[in-house]
Amino acid sequence: MSTAPVWSVDPRTGKPREEVASEASEHEVDEAVRAAWAARGALADRGVRAALLRTAAELLDGAAEHVVEAADAETALGPVRLTGELARTTAQLRAFADVVDEGAFLDVRIDHADPDRTPPWPDLRRMKVPLGVVAVYSASNFPLAFSVPGGDTASALAAGCPVVVKAHPAHPATSELCAALLRRAAVRVGLPPDVVTLVHGFDAGVALVRHPLVSAAGFTGSVRGGRALFDAAAARPVPIPFHGELGSLNPVVVTRAAAEERGEEIGAGLGASMTLGVGQFCTKPGFVLVPAGAGGDALVKALTAVVSDSEAGVMLDHRMRDAFVAGVAERAALDGVGAPVTPGPGGEHTVSAGFLTVGASALVASGPHDLLLEECFGPVTVVARYEHPSEIGAVLSRLPGNLTATLQLSAGEAAGSEGGGEAELLLASLSGLAGRVVVDGWPTGVAVAPAQHHGGPYPATTSTSTSVGATAVERWVRPVTYQDVPEVLLPGELREGGGVGVPRRVDGRWEFPTPPLP
Amino acid sequence: MSTAPVWSVDPRTGKPREEVASEASEHEVDEAVRAAWAARGALADRGVRAALLRTAAELLDGAAEHVVEAADAETALGPVRLTGELARTTAQLRAFADVVDEGAFLDVRIDHADPDRTPPWPDLRRMKVPLGVVAVYSASNFPLAFSVPGGDTASALAAGCPVVVKAHPAHPATSELCAALLRRAAVRVGLPPDVVTLVHGFDAGVALVRHPLVSAAGFTGSVRGGRALFDAAAARPVPIPFHGELGSLNPVVVTRAAAEERGEEIGAGLGASMTLGVGQFCTKPGFVLVPAGAGGDALVKALTAVVSDSEAGVMLDHRMRDAFVAGVAERAALDGVGAPVTPGPGGEHTVSAGFLTVGASALVASGPHDLLLEECFGPVTVVARYEHPSEIGAVLSRLPGNLTATLQLSAGEAAGSEGGGEAELLLASLSGLAGRVVVDGWPTGVAVAPAQHHGGPYPATTSTSTSVGATAVERWVRPVTYQDVPEVLLPGELREGGGVGVPRRVDGRWEFPTPPLP
Repeated sequence: MSTAPVWSVDPRTGKPREEVASEASEHEVDEAVRAAWAARGALADRGVRAALLRTAAELLDGAAEHVVEAADAETALGPVRLTGELARTTAQLRAFADVVDEGAFLDVRIDHADPDRTPPWPDLRRMKVPLGVVAVYSASNFPLAFSVPGGDTASALAAGCPVVVKAHPAHPATSELCAALLRRAAVRVGLPPDVVTLVHGFDAGVALVRHPLVSAAGFTGSVRGGRALFDAAAARPVPIPFHGELGSLNPVVVTRAAAEERGEEIGAGLGASMTLGVGQFCTKPGFVLVPAGAGGDALVKALTAVVSDSEAGVMLDHRMRDAFVAGVAERAALDGVGAPVTPGPGGEHTVSAGFLTVGASALVASGPHDLLLEECFGPVTVVARYEHPSEIGAVLSRLPGNLTATLQLSAGEAAGSEGGGEAELLLASLSGLAGRVVVDGWPTGVAVAPAQHHGGPYPATTSTSTSVGATAVERWVRPVTYQDVPEVLLPGELREGGGVGVPRRVDGRWEFPTPPLP
Repeated sequence: MSTAPVWSVDPRTGKPREEVASEASEHEVDEAVRAAWAARGALADRGVRAALLRTAAELLDGAAEHVVEAADAETALGPVRLTGELARTTAQLRAFADVVDEGAFLDVRIDHADPDRTPPWPDLRRMKVPLGVVAVYSASNFPLAFSVPGGDTASALAAGCPVVVKAHPAHPATSELCAALLRRAAVRVGLPPDVVTLVHGFDAGVALVRHPLVSAAGFTGSVRGGRALFDAAAARPVPIPFHGELGSLNPVVVTRAAAEERGEEIGAGLGASMTLGVGQFCTKPGFVLVPAGAGGDALVKALTAVVSDSEAGVMLDHRMRDAFVAGVAERAALDGVGAPVTPGPGGEHTVSAGFLTVGASALVASGPHDLLLEECFGPVTVVARYEHPSEIGAVLSRLPGNLTATLQLSAGEAAGSEGGGEAELLLASLSGLAGRVVVDGWPTGVAVAPAQHHGGPYPATTSTSTSVGATAVERWVRPVTYQDVPEVLLPGELREGGGVGVPRRVDGRWEFPTPPLP
């Protein structure tokens, strides 16, 4: 059976660079999943998982020059951004090693037998166990941090789940290189290499989510692709959790007082955020409610200046460039939509940034302008001007779910001394719409911190979980309670005295392991 | 628009008792959901949620006689069982009030800004927020603990989510009574009564899961009904989490040494567990691997004695009785299946308990005998006799997911001094199949303890969450991270100093509120 070759393509020229691999046949997908499944027992030990994650980080750091070069050749994201993304990726791997070491995600709870209760309680000991093989679908726009060695892979391995990655067609060579490094890390710590396997091809991705031995999936990509895979995951004879990040408009609300106080600064900040990485961040602010009047005008003027000055950029691939150009044209053609800086095709392979304007009143009821409330991937944003603050709520109530929502306040509003509770209401409204609420900042840039959440109501995410930060590991585990199981047969984390030191709730009270002597 | 009347029926006679309500039209479902939605803001305060749960428990306890009488008239479960179930139900409500007070489920994490990082970290503060309106589908077999005032309702209210309950047609009058008590409790603590609303009817249940303002669903019932609703939840334009408990075989493995040591005791225990509540527990042991030979024979003999002696019982309704009789007949007709005690129709309205036997070798490969690996609701179990321990693994690998799995060991195996690691392997295999593993006990009876888990791989559960125990509340919340949000605009739980005392992870370290002075 012959399958299609997979080419690495240079987005700066549209020319094929090299043939990297073949699309996996259904049989090859089956082999990859079975190999991962067979390797799952080797990940049972938490110590070796932590070692795997740290060794993977080391090998990636050691090959940094090579990795960045490969990724830049396929994505045109540039060495500065990609060096930063690699640092973030290896920091993620190390952070998940710390999560494994700490073991809080096991959520260990122990209730000793209580014969005096009616009915009596048996001895119950509960912890989280790995789900099984996890399928990871790589993102186009983060060839490292949300792809083969990215957060989904790192958190799944941390949970004890082997991973089969579906490579993104925009960066197959980078994917092969990273997979080889992860597999080398596995071997170096004494694990079978198949704790991470890689497949290419659209059909392979569909076969993967349908495979009976796949227990869960993580996805970062478009609403269309993600929804199709979500539907396939839900339609299986045995449905599986599908944690997908699908798309986000990332609304921004600028109050009248904020615009009056620092319209120019906000406009410049918006311009910088929306053009960052050629507008290809999932957290790009794509819709901005700006007041009518002088403050808002100053904002738009500053935005115009920054966006006009931004250089034309190369998008991740030509398919995305075409979709951007078409999406902008369709939006710009709507009644009453202006384009102070017209976004669109730049040179033969580039695009130029821009933004559209519209009156917010066009968006308070459903109609053709609803298209402006859908994400358009690339360097464009929509500025909706409102006459009265009541329009803000009316428009927000019509928005889909988002990764982020941003509020720009005046100093008085932020201090609670101005605006009469308006800021509090806006914040409540925005937190109902998004997984992260930002005040007086910009949503691009996602710190990989324990308190981070990257997710939000659908379509931002297909689940209520996060894909960034320590708690991302919780997606790949399920609880098991051991009832009256003899001590010698219990996992170490559940034994009396806590031989394997993890935080535990014993008879309702927290217990923490004694830190080792220095 | 006219809708069908909803009758309360006496399962002991099959006769209608009274007309209780009407099936809700789509318009009435819409009204119920909108009323719940409008009430959601009132649940934002954790204090009032705890008060609601405790007051509901008080009112139910106060009306105990009336509630038990109503439930017995519709379900024939008997006053002893129902008095116990009510006690469990009010204990659950109070336990979730404690969960709300403690606030650990909010999973508060605070990372202070760190300008020295590359890139710098902003101030990030994360907590869980309520999802919105939750739809709860009541169970037939627990008219209280898994119905209107049950664990799904209690955990959703604890999370801050209003609830619309779809009543089970087997106990509509009990449902009405309990809903009235819950609504009265709401009013008593100053909440709108619509934080709990009730609808009847099959079509209403479908309309409910499809309603755009419903954010999540909890379900306890059959594989067929649950899967249909799960599919509807996943097919929505905006899919919602569907936490369903659908069905479970609850396998039991008896080792050869265990059967030899105490076959009689195990047989008697099995007989008591499988006939409890006329075999209508979701944790009924429905499939038992028993060794061939004298030990196993003693087990079967004791089982025969207990089951023969059990009295004929009334099932929850006639539809279930018919399904039980048909399911048993279909299984008993399979090649090589014996029926030492034939289960089937008892009197005109009752059923009698029994069990089937088969050689385990008939189950190691797919074929017509696979029917024996599907749950049959009612007082029947399947005893599969194995010749060699290798058959155990072969059969277990073919089982679907389960709520529970039980292992009967000899004293030596339990102590780790006999069997050469066989018990450890069996336990690992069973924990891969189920959410709760029981050693030397029986799975019926689910202690409502913090370390409890009631759930398991599909079809036991459609998600990786639990429906019993403190962590059931986690199903109805999602994280939100507040980035650089001014102190005055933050929820109390996220403010500096922790004005509202909940456990928090601050810069990675746990912090607990100071307990109040005695």
